[in-house]
Amino acid sequence: MSKYNIGVDVGGTTVKIGVFDREKAAIDIETKTSIPTRTENDGVHILPDIAEAIAVLMEEYGAEMDDVARIGIGVPGPVITDRKTGQMFVNKCVNLGWSSMIDVPQELSELTGVQNISVINDANAAALGEVIAGSCSDKTVVVVTLGTGIGGGIVQSGRIMPGAFGAAGEIGHIKIQPQHPLIKNLSTLKPFADLEYYVSATGIARTAKAALQILPDQSILRDDLNAENSLTDKDKTSEDTGNSLNWPDAKAVMDAAKKGDALALKLTDFFFDTLGIGLASVAGVVDPDMFIIGGGVAGAGLFLTDGLQASYRKYVFHASSETEFRLAVLGNDAGMIGAACSGN
Amino acid sequence: MSKYNIGVDVGGTTVKIGVFDREKAAIDIETKTSIPTRTENDGVHILPDIAEAIAVLMEEYGAEMDDVARIGIGVPGPVITDRKTGQMFVNKCVNLGWSSMIDVPQELSELTGVQNISVINDANAAALGEVIAGSCSDKTVVVVTLGTGIGGGIVQSGRIMPGAFGAAGEIGHIKIQPQHPLIKNLSTLKPFADLEYYVSATGIARTAKAALQILPDQSILRDDLNAENSLTDKDKTSEDTGNSLNWPDAKAVMDAAKKGDALALKLTDFFFDTLGIGLASVAGVVDPDMFIIGGGVAGAGLFLTDGLQASYRKYVFHASSETEFRLAVLGNDAGMIGAACSGN
Repeated sequence: MSKYNIGVDVGGTTVKIGVFDREKAAIDIETKTSIPTRTENDGVHILPDIAEAIAVLMEEYGAEMDDVARIGIGVPGPVITDRKTGQMFVNKCVNLGWSSMIDVPQELSELTGVQNISVINDANAAALGEVIAGSCSDKTVVVVTLGTGIGGGIVQSGRIMPGAFGAAGEIGHIKIQPQHPLIKNLSTLKPFADLEYYVSATGIARTAKAALQILPDQSILRDDLNAENSLTDKDKTSEDTGNSLNWPDAKAVMDAAKKGDALALKLTDFFFDTLGIGLASVAGVVDPDMFIIGGGVAGAGLFLTDGLQASYRKYVFHASSETEFRLAVLGNDAGMIGAACSGN
Repeated sequence: MSKYNIGVDVGGTTVKIGVFDREKAAIDIETKTSIPTRTENDGVHILPDIAEAIAVLMEEYGAEMDDVARIGIGVPGPVITDRKTGQMFVNKCVNLGWSSMIDVPQELSELTGVQNISVINDANAAALGEVIAGSCSDKTVVVVTLGTGIGGGIVQSGRIMPGAFGAAGEIGHIKIQPQHPLIKNLSTLKPFADLEYYVSATGIARTAKAALQILPDQSILRDDLNAENSLTDKDKTSEDTGNSLNWPDAKAVMDAAKKGDALALKLTDFFFDTLGIGLASVAGVVDPDMFIIGGGVAGAGLFLTDGLQASYRKYVFHASSETEFRLAVLGNDAGMIGAACSGN
């Protein structure tokens, strides 16, 4: 009885749900499913949809709802815990259509019959998952997820640091003025903005587009752009061909830099330098043992962590210069795994 | 028996030692003393001097060394705890002449006969003292001490966050590019530097000097400068009178701004804006309930915390905009009180 934990990762388009055997390793998924996130009508369908999907998944797996010991659910918004009652609220989630304070554990408990439910910020859930997978639960770890934005989570001795307003680890919103000389040439970029403006996957693509538009440098990024363009009929009929080009994404920039493309290397240098300032600031606050870098951009592998660590050391207070840099390992399951392990 | 705690705050010039009754409030000092810090010969005299001063102080107070339950000692350097053994080391302390890793508890234990000794970074000790004095031990608090440099300490639920390399809360070393327009005119200042370069007491004085040298603005700061100068004979014979003037210190700048002096108000605006960016970055990492602002500069009172909070809100991620700002209350005793309360 009660031998399973359920991990739920609620994204803006998809909800991922996994079943975990409490007697096995925390990262071993017994079975999983995913459903679309219905954000219409202020997202009123989301929790009922999740409850139904959990029931179906458990039935297909051949177990009862009574076998569920607990559910952990990760959401893309700030989670606040009432210090007196221990109640956990989600304080608005624009990506889900939730515009008010919602007691997610209470509502999901009524829908599923499961009593032990906890809610966690999705970036924090992913951070917790990576720390468990990396066997570094005895350390202070900052997990940085470079995707559409930048997600971050701080894990101390295996526990998430939530923050007073559910916003600890929101390092994508630290304000940064890039110091790399490239910024002076890229006049279409803001000179001072949120860290994620420059170094999320979106930020890398933004910087690449600005560089290709403004700088005369030859680059395989430009060749690719033209090649794509010549193949695409709709571009030729578009009035504003500039906007309909397939500008390079973060992966294209990283790949070109690895091949030695000079412009792409300028872009990755800018990326390393700017994120290096940001992570040095993070270390000036929490001085972690380790950064774990995840998200789509982390597909660039050691090229990314080595370059980033070198820039970080330029800017960080000397005491913290030996901070370890690692790549995330769980990919898209990190949030689901971490959510399943969160709570008590 | 064993009814007293001893708190020791080792500074670069003075060591403060206080005796605390374990049955009374943690901030009530029974008796205290101070001795000079002898940094010569690699600071070999410091710990023996402290042991002797503790013995003398206890005797004068009419108690035995056996009555000492524990000693907490704060030092101006990074403190590292061995996770396996629990041993605490001070990893070099340039201000004390200590150039190697020192097992302070072990050495002081041999000198005093007291077994229970812990060592803590001095800024962390001051932070702990302020949190205890402010009755906010259930919160996450960042204590910022604006003095010669910037000291910082993060206290979570009454416990110091030490950091992997003893450098958590070292927020004075976060790199900042000021955004306030004044920086464009003050060409003698670096455009990008450690936070403490701009907004420590030293930083405020540095900025004021640059402004008085470069800007033509009338100001009572300039009047004071000239008045001081006309009274000082040595200035008249100095070849470089610029350097022998008594440039305003941080207190003079704050006082002039409170009187409505236009140039001083530009300087305090610059201070608020720059420190506001820094504290917004801190909140983007740990999202505290509260900032407590201490050090000599905090003598400016609510003028300081109100101005700072307004700038902070301009830059911080919206979720954290309600962070509380308070003034420190313990003054120079904070480190001694916090050290006495540190350890187990």
